[in-house]
Amino acid sequence: MSSNQVDGHPFFRFCRTALENIRAQGRYRQFTPLARQAERYPLYDQPETQATPSTPACPQDREVVVWSSNDYLGMGVDPVVVEAAIQAIHEHGAGAGGTRNIAGTSPVHTALEAEMADLHGKEAGLLFVSGYVSNQATLQTILSSMPGWICFSDRLNHASMIAGIKGARGSTTVIYEHNDLADLEAKLAAAPRDAPKLIAFESVYSMDGDISDIAGTCALARKYGAITYLDEVHAVGLYGDQGGGVSERDGVADQVDIIEGTLAKGFGVHGGYITATSDIVEYLRLAASGFIFTTALPPAVVAAALASVRLVRKDGWRRERMFERVNTFREKLRKAGIPFTMTPSHIVPIPVGDAQRCRELSDRLLNDYGIYATPINYPTVPRGTERLRLTPGPFHTDEMMDDMVTALSRLLRINDLAPQPVAAMA
Amino acid sequence: MSSNQVDGHPFFRFCRTALENIRAQGRYRQFTPLARQAERYPLYDQPETQATPSTPACPQDREVVVWSSNDYLGMGVDPVVVEAAIQAIHEHGAGAGGTRNIAGTSPVHTALEAEMADLHGKEAGLLFVSGYVSNQATLQTILSSMPGWICFSDRLNHASMIAGIKGARGSTTVIYEHNDLADLEAKLAAAPRDAPKLIAFESVYSMDGDISDIAGTCALARKYGAITYLDEVHAVGLYGDQGGGVSERDGVADQVDIIEGTLAKGFGVHGGYITATSDIVEYLRLAASGFIFTTALPPAVVAAALASVRLVRKDGWRRERMFERVNTFREKLRKAGIPFTMTPSHIVPIPVGDAQRCRELSDRLLNDYGIYATPINYPTVPRGTERLRLTPGPFHTDEMMDDMVTALSRLLRINDLAPQPVAAMA
Repeated sequence: MSSNQVDGHPFFRFCRTALENIRAQGRYRQFTPLARQAERYPLYDQPETQATPSTPACPQDREVVVWSSNDYLGMGVDPVVVEAAIQAIHEHGAGAGGTRNIAGTSPVHTALEAEMADLHGKEAGLLFVSGYVSNQATLQTILSSMPGWICFSDRLNHASMIAGIKGARGSTTVIYEHNDLADLEAKLAAAPRDAPKLIAFESVYSMDGDISDIAGTCALARKYGAITYLDEVHAVGLYGDQGGGVSERDGVADQVDIIEGTLAKGFGVHGGYITATSDIVEYLRLAASGFIFTTALPPAVVAAALASVRLVRKDGWRRERMFERVNTFREKLRKAGIPFTMTPSHIVPIPVGDAQRCRELSDRLLNDYGIYATPINYPTVPRGTERLRLTPGPFHTDEMMDDMVTALSRLLRINDLAPQPVAAMA
Repeated sequence: MSSNQVDGHPFFRFCRTALENIRAQGRYRQFTPLARQAERYPLYDQPETQATPSTPACPQDREVVVWSSNDYLGMGVDPVVVEAAIQAIHEHGAGAGGTRNIAGTSPVHTALEAEMADLHGKEAGLLFVSGYVSNQATLQTILSSMPGWICFSDRLNHASMIAGIKGARGSTTVIYEHNDLADLEAKLAAAPRDAPKLIAFESVYSMDGDISDIAGTCALARKYGAITYLDEVHAVGLYGDQGGGVSERDGVADQVDIIEGTLAKGFGVHGGYITATSDIVEYLRLAASGFIFTTALPPAVVAAALASVRLVRKDGWRRERMFERVNTFREKLRKAGIPFTMTPSHIVPIPVGDAQRCRELSDRLLNDYGIYATPINYPTVPRGTERLRLTPGPFHTDEMMDDMVTALSRLLRINDLAPQPVAAMA
């Protein structure tokens, strides 16, 4: 151990106190080790584990049904995608070996960037190591590019967008109420006419499952001279005829200046990207620190993502099946009288409203029923709106759904696990 | 196209002008598409390509020798590593499917974190999607944790550390001269005694190839009550009996509070990590936005990295062979009278001193000799210190070295490609 610990640098005390507080608030996150079974998705192996500070005990190896994956369509375990990844590892090895500039640009990187641009009807695309980095690096770079930027940011934007917006020191941030175009317009109208403006928003808000009015937002952008930045992370692969997201479904992709997405959710692999005009993409390619100074995605990840995107564009059945499953599951919940938040998307939140209860509900689902549903607590959602967030996919069977409904019915009947009235449908 | 373009939002004009300026300064980065050949590393395929704004033309498919990879030991193409990746894809699919909290923690993630902690003699480890993110997220989170932090940062620290340090708004940054402990001490002594302090530095500075005095830095940290944050990104896998980095080689890992590293260079795969006390790691796990809100690394990436780390710890021959190759190459350069910067590390910079000449030297090596060496220009290094940065590895043969020496001799004899006197040994 460092002698600093002995000497008592205040940061060591700070960490200890912070951890005690987090535990006391019942929002200590434990990561449950779960090994996805490629051939039996959404089944995972939960290995035998002893309890540790970060993981709960599991007395013996067993199989659990996962209800919280963001690989919404199961593309990460699709045989074509798996085969593309394996082929690329055989050919090129396990890593890229360098930044994009330092021998890390394989032809498949270029091909995937062109594919994403084509999917969204844009001139060019740019890959990042994650969706988080694509949001953070792009927004920070743009909002630092000229003096006087004003960023109009939806109140519920994802942490990665907020990180990029806050990181752009010279810019001003105006937060508008969630999905509230009247508020956005009032704030646009009140801003200096000549300041460069950007509106940052999402299509599907992943924790609440609601969907924004892209056409309406873009109309305001035109009226007040703003460019638009749209996060389609929880929509790509799922919405639109080819999985181009809500902007494709609504026929408004051409009205959005920058569309950002991920390869890790609907496409089931890993990495993030943006698409825009060639000039914007080229500028970001040459100026964004979070793009330049980082090892390129492994060729196998890129090859798998490319195979997945091509498959998702061509075949609509996974999307259709997912929505059918979502609707079937909601119907089962409704019949059983289990409260859930009705959303216009594929996301099914079960409100709980308290971190400790949410944690306990999740633990008991896992321990007593072999069902895994992540508790969603602060800081992911505001305190008082804690929830389980369920994502039924094309491979959740009726039987799995019935098991989940039975388990939830029993657990919610236990008084202290039922949702609090206030937060119930928040 | 968005009507914003027609309406002429100033950002569109800004991008166009910025790109024109970058081109005029000769520092327009083109990414050469190169496909690594797993079984013939360091040979890569350069595919036939037409020139595009971001890629130069290549009239026909051919094989080139790459001299710029950061997969220093070729671990990314090691059969054991390749097999581990393939096995994990078969078992678990191509992606993780969620954040670490949302079903994204496979047992192999936990195992790799324990392995990295063990390598550096620390209590715990934490994985990030990249080395860049590990530096940025960790430093930003720590330096935002308490009021009054002062960060003492080496002038040549990597962009990712700077991003994290700058991102921590409440903190103060004091930049000390590169590897200058007298300057660091003067600045520590001048700072308020009670302020929480952190010293952020690297072991191997990758662009100059010099190595810091870790023991000396830690002694100052103890004297002035600072915690130490050490980036071993270009050292892990390569230095120390088990590849624990310069801190292992120097026997001082226990004096460093936080050791950060990458799985993408000496270990040849992808991702970044930190190791520290359990309390620090737990705090970051629960507080760092860039860790929490991002999809976990794919199990196959983690499994490959784990196989690589275990192999590198056990087998020293790759490290020994790399240093033998580096020394042999330097000897050949010396005999041929080719100027290079002598460094105490494995990195061989060839100074050029001008962005345009550096670019042209790299282009002619590739086009005329089938040799790829990345030009390193601003913003990666300061203007006037542009260079080729060569990284001979265990699989660069004598013949490849002779070809490189011949090519450099010829090209540098051409007057306008020779280094400028001022920058020659900068």
